[in-house]
Amino acid sequence: MSNGILMVISGPAGSGKGTAVKLLRERIPELALSVSATTRAPRPGEEDGVHYYFISREEFERRIAAGEILEYTEYCDNLYGTPAEAVRRVLESGKDMVLEIEVDGASQIKKKFPDAVTVMLIPPDGETLEARLRGRGTETDEVIEWRMARAREEIALSKDYDYIAVSYDGRADECAADLQAILKSEHYRQSRMTSVTDAFFEN
Amino acid sequence: MSNGILMVISGPAGSGKGTAVKLLRERIPELALSVSATTRAPRPGEEDGVHYYFISREEFERRIAAGEILEYTEYCDNLYGTPAEAVRRVLESGKDMVLEIEVDGASQIKKKFPDAVTVMLIPPDGETLEARLRGRGTETDEVIEWRMARAREEIALSKDYDYIAVSYDGRADECAADLQAILKSEHYRQSRMTSVTDAFFEN
Repeated sequence: MSNGILMVISGPAGSGKGTAVKLLRERIPELALSVSATTRAPRPGEEDGVHYYFISREEFERRIAAGEILEYTEYCDNLYGTPAEAVRRVLESGKDMVLEIEVDGASQIKKKFPDAVTVMLIPPDGETLEARLRGRGTETDEVIEWRMARAREEIALSKDYDYIAVSYDGRADECAADLQAILKSEHYRQSRMTSVTDAFFEN
Repeated sequence: MSNGILMVISGPAGSGKGTAVKLLRERIPELALSVSATTRAPRPGEEDGVHYYFISREEFERRIAAGEILEYTEYCDNLYGTPAEAVRRVLESGKDMVLEIEVDGASQIKKKFPDAVTVMLIPPDGETLEARLRGRGTETDEVIEWRMARAREEIALSKDYDYIAVSYDGRADECAADLQAILKSEHYRQSRMTSVTDAFFEN
């Protein structure tokens, strides 16, 4: 059996990546979702290995040094990251996995998993993005301006991604269908089909 | 508007490529089909520019020399080939186009249209292929043996293709859906999306 595919989905705040991943998982129920590791304490009801892998900061830092964390970030004094071993185990079982991360994490992933398929989700244009950020109604003009500038920086990194998908307003399900087509087609890439073509000569 | 995609579908005799292309066109009615040029005389009911472009051998050979024929083959003393200009016109109008050709024509196409997406369709295994060739009931053991050897040679060329799709018995429509997913996802490849990402910085 061939390995599953790791699909990395990212995009600026307001790109709709959370919704896209949720709808993609509804379309493909067998698609595994990466469980992050964190140094923060579990909240009531959170289970180790389900919501997060809860580990100490010492252990987290040891894993970073050992190359066992695919990508990570620090938020409110806690570390959050993707444990390589858990991803590897799922892919080797033949299952595909989706991983939703921050934009600059994708290049870290490609170094450790060159076969990962990276997709940057972007809004159709700047106006749409600004309207979405304002629509949240929770952020000051200053924060929105900062987010817009940050989005431009992030979209400039799209050149390092394999695919760019667009999240049009009111078409979230079509966007999820696009991601599904990308994942499906990647299974047929020549480099992933050599076990099938090689087998043709064995009988 | 960005250019359409040229999708080249090929595969050994018995791979089911004719059926797959027919079903793909039913799924995507706006998908253009390349019209071949030929030196043979039109048969009753055949229209120039619809069934074939009917041209003289002299004109065909002039076009080959001028690089205006994407790929060609000779059959029963007549030349058959794909005129580059007609393909280019369709792609520049923004429409996608499918082209069904012989296996060794794909590398010729890639030289002239590096952006073409090439798919080799193969049967799941040698036994299935042999059963299909025997099922036609029209060919001698000798011809079948020759076709099997030829299929092996052709499948060895799959390393030069972008994608390998598999035609399982009784699953022709799933195969067409795979081709559709490949065509869809190719529109989202980073190299084809730069007009969208660039536009983000213009407003």
